[in-house]
Amino acid sequence: MRKKVNIGIIGCGVVGTQTALVLCKKKSLFSSYNGVEYRLRKACDIDWNQKRQWMPPEQLRIRDYNEIIDDPDLDIVVELIGKFQPAYEIIKRCLESGKAVVTANKFLLSKKLLELIDLANRNKTYLGFEASVAGAIPVIKSLRESFAANRINSIIGILNGTTNFILSSMTEKKQSFQDALLSARRLGYAESDPSLDISGRDSAQKLAIISTCAFHHPISDDDFLIEGIDKIEAEDIDFSSELGYRVKLLAVSKRMNDSISLRVHPALIPKNHMLADVEDVYNAVYLQGDLFGSSLLYGEGAGGRAAASAVLSDIIEIGKKISAQSHFSEHFVVEPEISIFPVERIETRYYLRFTALDRPGVLARVAEILGKNNISIASVIQKKENPEHAVPIVMLTHRAVEKNIRRAIEEIDKLSCIKKTTRMIRVEE
Amino acid sequence: MRKKVNIGIIGCGVVGTQTALVLCKKKSLFSSYNGVEYRLRKACDIDWNQKRQWMPPEQLRIRDYNEIIDDPDLDIVVELIGKFQPAYEIIKRCLESGKAVVTANKFLLSKKLLELIDLANRNKTYLGFEASVAGAIPVIKSLRESFAANRINSIIGILNGTTNFILSSMTEKKQSFQDALLSARRLGYAESDPSLDISGRDSAQKLAIISTCAFHHPISDDDFLIEGIDKIEAEDIDFSSELGYRVKLLAVSKRMNDSISLRVHPALIPKNHMLADVEDVYNAVYLQGDLFGSSLLYGEGAGGRAAASAVLSDIIEIGKKISAQSHFSEHFVVEPEISIFPVERIETRYYLRFTALDRPGVLARVAEILGKNNISIASVIQKKENPEHAVPIVMLTHRAVEKNIRRAIEEIDKLSCIKKTTRMIRVEE
Repeated sequence: MRKKVNIGIIGCGVVGTQTALVLCKKKSLFSSYNGVEYRLRKACDIDWNQKRQWMPPEQLRIRDYNEIIDDPDLDIVVELIGKFQPAYEIIKRCLESGKAVVTANKFLLSKKLLELIDLANRNKTYLGFEASVAGAIPVIKSLRESFAANRINSIIGILNGTTNFILSSMTEKKQSFQDALLSARRLGYAESDPSLDISGRDSAQKLAIISTCAFHHPISDDDFLIEGIDKIEAEDIDFSSELGYRVKLLAVSKRMNDSISLRVHPALIPKNHMLADVEDVYNAVYLQGDLFGSSLLYGEGAGGRAAASAVLSDIIEIGKKISAQSHFSEHFVVEPEISIFPVERIETRYYLRFTALDRPGVLARVAEILGKNNISIASVIQKKENPEHAVPIVMLTHRAVEKNIRRAIEEIDKLSCIKKTTRMIRVEE
Repeated sequence: MRKKVNIGIIGCGVVGTQTALVLCKKKSLFSSYNGVEYRLRKACDIDWNQKRQWMPPEQLRIRDYNEIIDDPDLDIVVELIGKFQPAYEIIKRCLESGKAVVTANKFLLSKKLLELIDLANRNKTYLGFEASVAGAIPVIKSLRESFAANRINSIIGILNGTTNFILSSMTEKKQSFQDALLSARRLGYAESDPSLDISGRDSAQKLAIISTCAFHHPISDDDFLIEGIDKIEAEDIDFSSELGYRVKLLAVSKRMNDSISLRVHPALIPKNHMLADVEDVYNAVYLQGDLFGSSLLYGEGAGGRAAASAVLSDIIEIGKKISAQSHFSEHFVVEPEISIFPVERIETRYYLRFTALDRPGVLARVAEILGKNNISIASVIQKKENPEHAVPIVMLTHRAVEKNIRRAIEEIDKLSCIKKTTRMIRVEE
């Protein structure tokens, strides 16, 4: 058994710095677990003049990542630069040379996960990617190992801290979307360009990765419906609350016989659902499987320390395997018959907010169009505020088919008494 | 690489039967993960005439567990008979002969975990025990692998489904303890002798196991305070609710500098705490660590399928390691300086319910004794119901020391105006 595992880190931003710091500080603790000495040998960044919470010892600092890729003494390379290139090239070259790779790169893995796992297997090495989804929450390991005996039936995740913080602020502090976004920025929870978060794209990339693990099928975030939270208004949050729901940006994937239904969108979720209590920047994943039933994994989904916790868990586990000088491949035998369930056939309940002139007969016209499209109404909130102006009419439907809802809204929005585009939010029970 | 892993199960009750059933039914699925063929070769039980949900094929059924221990072709032995002996002997003999062992035996592991891990290491084999705590919830794997880079600072668990069901029923259906226990029995959630659950002993065994994993120190359930839920009355649930709390049976272990504070007891927990929403027979573990911050793992803590999910996850992982024909030992280097924090020095807030004659000056007498013992009062509920009879006075204290609370209650209970033993419930914030 080898006793030393040599590590190189490419990308020393917040997560990389934290990972390097803990590797140096807790060296003897990690070694006490399993007798392996985890040694940080090289830390690469393009700009070492940038201010950091901590600085790796000078002799470890390099600027050219090729020095890590080409170093035959390194066992594990940690890729933390993100985005597609050069990360893709770096990971491929490392795996091809037999080095194990640990990455948090959700963008890349949402496109290339199975290809890279396969490349790792063929080169008898490992790819660790726990940190790519939901920070320190052990969702990847749970799906791949703890729940391995299960058929996973559904995943509902709150996978983006920024949007969850915004929706929480809108709910608790009655803030508008814009004000909540400003608070998020002020607290460092939103990037200067928060569009990846707000649009739902970040959640979709993470959903693609965990769904690939859960359903043993390559799933890309290009394959499914993605809606962001930018159209959610304060009154939607209030009406939802009145109806007994919270509004959350959910990432959903569900097994439907031989297909998988996937989608990312804001959704109403009952107040007594465990996910309704996930506040602020926290993340959570609610899973259902044929043996374990229901499970929730909850924790900090972002931040340097939480992400480093996940990166380091991969380093420690892979280090053990490397030191045992053996390889067991982790196939992902693709279930070939599985297809993506068409979005128009999704069936849920729907929250609809119409903005209509407050005249007799308006409700009847709307209800008629809904009825014609096989949509039945479960409850209605109509508050007369000003008979001169348009007022909101809120409806919660019974289960209906997406295609029908879309057709009905299109028709309703053409009515002369309807003054604004109707807002539709799906309901997740 | 070997391709076949042979498995024997000792104890075919609910969990054993479910494990055997899934092993036989999902054989090709498991094999597709990693190329290993998981083969159930022997299933042992003393009574095959008992009715079961499913029956292993006749040629696999045996009655004498020695046939499993002595079979050189078996790689993994699953021990599901529980209790101390002969389980202890069986596991030791299996590990000594190089077989891996998977067990759900919380009773045995709460006394012998480190000894058995050490025995597995010395014989270059493995001990899997995920199913011993909280059913399918991956708490053992998370502590040992996912959160391995962390210093664990605290664990608060709801680890017993029966008691959680009883407290949930008392809260939601306003049932008495006895009625709630009867419902639990009727639904199959409580054993005919539920004393292990009710007394807190079952939770304490599980807390000992996860605390040993978290703090790298041998912890037995003989080492700490254990209080059950049998003294909780319906009015305690009501008063707690009025104060903004739920009552739960909590298993708590916390790092306090160089010692660990451990205890199992009913506790008031704020309604907005994630653990307050854990209802019915569900289990959950709330963890805090220096890197991951806070995390909650929630799911089904009992039942054949959930436990089988955990047993099978250990079988699949150990099978991969065996098939790679290598061994990496998983030390538990004991942190020698850690001691158990004395219970009298625990500091929390306390809920106190006095039963006192409704006379002027009673509150003053009680408050005086509390003050003398360095206990200050945060809030009081006193409802005059009948000036002829004793009435409840409920107080919530600020943080106080256990020793002082005990001394104060002893003194208060001697007052002539106090008509029943004072009830004390700790508060966990």
